Amino acid sequence: MINGEKRIGRPLRWAMIGGGRHSQVGYKHRTGALRDNTAFQLVAGAFDIDPERGKDFGVNLGVAEERCYPNYQSMFRNEAEREDGIEVVTIATPNGTHYEITMAALAAGLHVICEKPLTFTTAEAEEIQAFAEKQGKIVGVTYGYSGNILLLQMRAMIAQGKIGDIRMVELQYTHGFAATDENDRKSEGQKWRVDPKIAGPSFVLGDLATHTYYMSQLIMPQMKISKLLCDRQSFVGSRAPLEDNAYVMMHYENGAVGRMWTSAVNAGCMDGQRIRIVGSKASLEWWDSKPNELLYEVQGQPSQTLVRGMDYLDETVNAYERLAALHQEGLSDAWANLYLNIAIAIDAKERGDEETLNKLIYADINAGVEGVRWVETCVRSAENGSVWVNFDAGVPVTS
Amino acid sequence: MINGEKRIGRPLRWAMIGGGRHSQVGYKHRTGALRDNTAFQLVAGAFDIDPERGKDFGVNLGVAEERCYPNYQSMFRNEAEREDGIEVVTIATPNGTHYEITMAALAAGLHVICEKPLTFTTAEAEEIQAFAEKQGKIVGVTYGYSGNILLLQMRAMIAQGKIGDIRMVELQYTHGFAATDENDRKSEGQKWRVDPKIAGPSFVLGDLATHTYYMSQLIMPQMKISKLLCDRQSFVGSRAPLEDNAYVMMHYENGAVGRMWTSAVNAGCMDGQRIRIVGSKASLEWWDSKPNELLYEVQGQPSQTLVRGMDYLDETVNAYERLAALHQEGLSDAWANLYLNIAIAIDAKERGDEETLNKLIYADINAGVEGVRWVETCVRSAENGSVWVNFDAGVPVTS
Amino acid sequence: MINGEKRIGRPLRWAMIGGGRHSQVGYKHRTGALRDNTAFQLVAGAFDIDPERGKDFGVNLGVAEERCYPNYQSMFRNEAEREDGIEVVTIATPNGTHYEITMAALAAGLHVICEKPLTFTTAEAEEIQAFAEKQGKIVGVTYGYSGNILLLQMRAMIAQGKIGDIRMVELQYTHGFAATDENDRKSEGQKWRVDPKIAGPSFVLGDLATHTYYMSQLIMPQMKISKLLCDRQSFVGSRAPLEDNAYVMMHYENGAVGRMWTSAVNAGCMDGQRIRIVGSKASLEWWDSKPNELLYEVQGQPSQTLVRGMDYLDETVNAYERLAALHQEGLSDAWANLYLNIAIAIDAKERGDEETLNKLIYADINAGVEGVRWVETCVRSAENGSVWVNFDAGVPVTS
Amino acid sequence: MINGEKRIGRPLRWAMIGGGRHSQVGYKHRTGALRDNTAFQLVAGAFDIDPERGKDFGVNLGVAEERCYPNYQSMFRNEAEREDGIEVVTIATPNGTHYEITMAALAAGLHVICEKPLTFTTAEAEEIQAFAEKQGKIVGVTYGYSGNILLLQMRAMIAQGKIGDIRMVELQYTHGFAATDENDRKSEGQKWRVDPKIAGPSFVLGDLATHTYYMSQLIMPQMKISKLLCDRQSFVGSRAPLEDNAYVMMHYENGAVGRMWTSAVNAGCMDGQRIRIVGSKASLEWWDSKPNELLYEVQGQPSQTLVRGMDYLDETVNAYERLAALHQEGLSDAWANLYLNIAIAIDAKERGDEETLNKLIYADINAGVEGVRWVETCVRSAENGSVWVNFDAGVPVTS
Repeated sequence: MINGEKRIGRPLRWAMIGGGRHSQVGYKHRTGALRDNTAFQLVAGAFDIDPERGKDFGVNLGVAEERCYPNYQSMFRNEAEREDGIEVVTIATPNGTHYEITMAALAAGLHVICEKPLTFTTAEAEEIQAFAEKQGKIVGVTYGYSGNILLLQMRAMIAQGKIGDIRMVELQYTHGFAATDENDRKSEGQKWRVDPKIAGPSFVLGDLATHTYYMSQLIMPQMKISKLLCDRQSFVGSRAPLEDNAYVMMHYENGAVGRMWTSAVNAGCMDGQRIRIVGSKASLEWWDSKPNELLYEVQGQPSQTLVRGMDYLDETVNAYERLAALHQEGLSDAWANLYLNIAIAIDAKERGDEETLNKLIYADINAGVEGVRWVETCVRSAENGSVWVNFDAGVPVTS
Repeated sequence: MINGEKRIGRPLRWAMIGGGRHSQVGYKHRTGALRDNTAFQLVAGAFDIDPERGKDFGVNLGVAEERCYPNYQSMFRNEAEREDGIEVVTIATPNGTHYEITMAALAAGLHVICEKPLTFTTAEAEEIQAFAEKQGKIVGVTYGYSGNILLLQMRAMIAQGKIGDIRMVELQYTHGFAATDENDRKSEGQKWRVDPKIAGPSFVLGDLATHTYYMSQLIMPQMKISKLLCDRQSFVGSRAPLEDNAYVMMHYENGAVGRMWTSAVNAGCMDGQRIRIVGSKASLEWWDSKPNELLYEVQGQPSQTLVRGMDYLDETVNAYERLAALHQEGLSDAWANLYLNIAIAIDAKERGDEETLNKLIYADINAGVEGVRWVETCVRSAENGSVWVNFDAGVPVTS
Repeated sequence: MINGEKRIGRPLRWAMIGGGRHSQVGYKHRTGALRDNTAFQLVAGAFDIDPERGKDFGVNLGVAEERCYPNYQSMFRNEAEREDGIEVVTIATPNGTHYEITMAALAAGLHVICEKPLTFTTAEAEEIQAFAEKQGKIVGVTYGYSGNILLLQMRAMIAQGKIGDIRMVELQYTHGFAATDENDRKSEGQKWRVDPKIAGPSFVLGDLATHTYYMSQLIMPQMKISKLLCDRQSFVGSRAPLEDNAYVMMHYENGAVGRMWTSAVNAGCMDGQRIRIVGSKASLEWWDSKPNELLYEVQGQPSQTLVRGMDYLDETVNAYERLAALHQEGLSDAWANLYLNIAIAIDAKERGDEETLNKLIYADINAGVEGVRWVETCVRSAENGSVWVNFDAGVPVTS
Repeated sequence: MINGEKRIGRPLRWAMIGGGRHSQVGYKHRTGALRDNTAFQLVAGAFDIDPERGKDFGVNLGVAEERCYPNYQSMFRNEAEREDGIEVVTIATPNGTHYEITMAALAAGLHVICEKPLTFTTAEAEEIQAFAEKQGKIVGVTYGYSGNILLLQMRAMIAQGKIGDIRMVELQYTHGFAATDENDRKSEGQKWRVDPKIAGPSFVLGDLATHTYYMSQLIMPQMKISKLLCDRQSFVGSRAPLEDNAYVMMHYENGAVGRMWTSAVNAGCMDGQRIRIVGSKASLEWWDSKPNELLYEVQGQPSQTLVRGMDYLDETVNAYERLAALHQEGLSDAWANLYLNIAIAIDAKERGDEETLNKLIYADINAGVEGVRWVETCVRSAENGSVWVNFDAGVPVTS
């Protein structure tokens, strides 16, 4: 149970890059990080590409004016000179800047929390992985939905054999907000997402599906993809070569098969993500539009709906329970869990507490690398005519 | 509105082959055909492979004892000699017998209503098609779910441009009743379905997915598949080469893409069929577990749920309305619609009423051929390593 | 399991009074009675107040022209003279005629199936009860929804102690189709329902709530109301004194409490009936808009959804299973069950088979009497200022 | 849109009384108050009846050790002497202490945020109301669910005539966690709730239904109850005279009628609160288990589901939007809105900004008084044999 009491010695001194006044995701980062004021304190920021607007915004958040910087370079430089300088920085900028800023932050001796997808290429992501290791720093990746605690229930039940052997994996993250090109022109947040120079080699695969793919890894850490096939489309033609819809088929090493559907042109769809894991005797299904419920269907028995907050859930789930049964948790609670775990990881890293680090399940640098690798492999399949390509996973993720 | 009044001059004299005491589907045929006693009258049958049991069963249904035959051959022979002999026969036997019995029935001058999949091969199906044409007889195929009238609402709304251009087609027909091999050994109805000699080249593709595929054609008659890719598995190993799970990816000629998931090992799943058609501005979604509701989601607007029986539905839908709003229709009503349409087709054929035949939307011989062709193409893809194969559709279906 | 085979020696010769071409409910009667042609055969009728239209309609249904009568009197007279004359008659006319026609039918030696509410007053209903007893005839009442077989599952689970002691009973039958007075003027079916001379002392209490009240008796035969309070309104003022909305609060003899909400002005509501029975350790909930599902909620455990057609259901339920799991049953199946049970009752009555009659759970004359008594008591409470009034139930219902 | 930027000049110096380590609701207060650190700062507290535990807890939250007080008296005394002393205090203690502590806080010149129900009697509540007025201080009441922003959509749509004239009001707040007396003995949080000396004259009416009743006022500020009738039960006998289940029927001055069902013995129910407002042409329905969805049912049209975060919502709703569409908000967001509004009220009060105060819709002292009055009237009805009693509302609430 989480009630706001401190989990680490003292709050970490935290800064943000990006996530300013007009950013949608910036507020999710702050909501997650500052939930209880016992894990992080926001002390500095380079919030905006427009320095004045960024400073005004930071001051409105309560950051000291002199610690609202015009860019990340000046922030890293100036904060390094302070005794109470920042220890960890969140990077909530467009994809194309992640690699450069993360490397600079690590070089500046900072822990990093970076938006997904971590980089354009697996090679870059692995470079970050190696450099973080060398620097002895944590790099967390903000797969925000992964903080939904019923995912841990799925993980526990699968590990306990409650569904038998995994046979099929159904993954979906779709919406319809880009059904037309209107926002490609009007919305700052959408404009860069369909520009390969800023977004990288994919639109929805990287922007949406990496979330759900990581969640599938969180739920079934033992499952390894052996090969996959990706068929992607640009229904709004101006987005080509970036896809606004993609289907991926996956084969796992244990003989299981799976699918991912990701789309920004699934007109009218408000369900977001769905995950269904089918085993030899039962299935588990979770939708992020009903995050407090988990469907458990044993073949031949009445289907069961498990509800967040109940005693019958696994202890690994209820360790993160915040509001108690009947009280709906939502995405802000999920982000709070995500950030809390990263704080615990940073604290443990600083203390050299490998035991805690090994046990902690969180969206770490490996999760960042694997997400990029999965996108890269999907794009390679699609570009070769939507053919089967082998998938060679790297370091185990969240196992 | 349907209230039981006759739609054709007099009820057709009808017989069944198969569908006896222990058949699950046999009762659906009778329920559909005999709904109002104004379309069909059951006057004869070769209900069972066990002649005595078949006779006892037929008598219990009210069929005259002397018209309960030991096999279809004797029925065709004896009925041909009666002035009040049968005019139309339903074939509700395992797949492997469909071709032979259908050809014999046509040769005997009978109209035919046959279970799906019509045959093992497209060549056989086309042979039936040609022979029926020659004989001037109707061959209907019992895609029973296709009688759900909200499918006509989908068809009407798509034709009226209510969803814009079709982009994605999501099809699903899965259950979990064959999650283990228990029924492969115990259940007569399941045993032959996994025996290639009786079931043909597929299990779930033919047994389940052909229903949903036909429904997609009914909804979007203008859409033609250009190529497809099928990945199929035998999770219960003893079923190989027949699949108990299959994924199909489809490309349509207009640039749309689609997927089918069909499975008998989707443990615990009780939803059956789901159809989602995504257009450039809205989507339509229907589940056969909630057959009286149709979800209409216009991007950027509140989602709408259309309900069977309401005045706002298209007139082509309400022409088949039976019970009025608030009163749930189910699969027995769907089968009644299916059989009623086939009766109207037979009546029109006999009267040479081509206008009625051309306007009537029903599961005709073309639907039967195309279902077989689709399965055959899926199997070819799967057997070649789950690669893309071209799909050359035949005569237009239900357009 | 029901597959259409005969349950009684031969089909009963059956006639309808009312239920003609423009009747909505008439088709439900025929659909129910004629489902398998082994329980009833429609051989005569006085279908319409307009004799010519009635005859044309009857002929279209397949009834011999000379047995399509201008009124029930001539039908009773003429059929009595035939050797193959009718044995049982359905009365599907407006409420105000039920008493007179039922008494005449019993006097003519016929079994009766009558629409609800059976009569205007309990006294009349009890007179019918006594006369039927004297004549040795069955009077069934068409509480059509009560044929939904998951109600038997509720009955079985409650009897088996699966919810503990019953504490609360939530009943609802509401819709919004009379939200305005438009149909009071336009629709024949609605016009008489708000005319006290034809409808009797209530609108929605008798028209809607008697269904749900009977279903509650079917589910919990041991529960007796001790007192009740009714608050009723005429939101469309021209309907006064007849109510278009009513709330009833009930106290049961065992200390349980309950509520009924019935309304024809619940704008936009398409759910129809809901029944929730709360026990000391669990609850059962069923909605007639999802008739194939039953919610079972044990306090402190995952909630369960039981689905029609599954082996885990009680044998008393699966004895009435028609279509098997995954195949939705609807209201036409419910009416088929209702009529089948009445046929079995009539057959048993004729054979003097008291054992069958005692075991059979069906909507009998007692159910008809108790429905009228409940409405009468509600109206008495409402007319006295919505005060508590004692409820003295008569003969046990469906126990 | 809320993104964390300050809404008032500086954060208010805030303290808590109660809400310590084992309190379930305490964390909700902190989560709500501290969401963005721009409305409140937690600087002191008397968190626990056990002073040592309370101090340890406060320190773990980041409160200075010397400002973790053993009781509220010492906190008020000591804080009054500090230049940076507290300005506002939250009272999250059992009901029986609310009156005394609130009066003391007002006397100490503090603004107050108090748990519901505000007091045992209306007289006490009105005394607080008068004293707050005299002191020029705000008293907010933590009807936490009322911060769910789709309630504002209901308010706006009703005000705009989207449902016509209100006819029926269905309110429900039930759960089953007290189905047995187990927690009456084991759980500290439950023990006092069934002790009339600490809980006051009611259990579920005050503990649960006051939330939903306030929400009905928020949604329909113009609606006044004229009379009501309450039937309450103690299914767990040891709770008598406090009820664990209650039904309330209400008549409104405009002719509308309504019902409330509140229960702690609705075994297995996990839905919590449901609100349905039925108008002459449409209905609105909201459940707190699906807080991001609002059902809008216009009679004769497809039902609509409105979703939080969409542009089509009223601007008064989207002013409180935090996470954007597709991202589920939950109870922690609702509490954040509640606390933010109270901060704005306090700030306006201090600045003498009556315009802001008049426009602001929040759970103010009037809402507190009216909740107590409603409970008191319900209890009076129940104690007099569940009879109709007149309801004389006081000052308008949230209008």
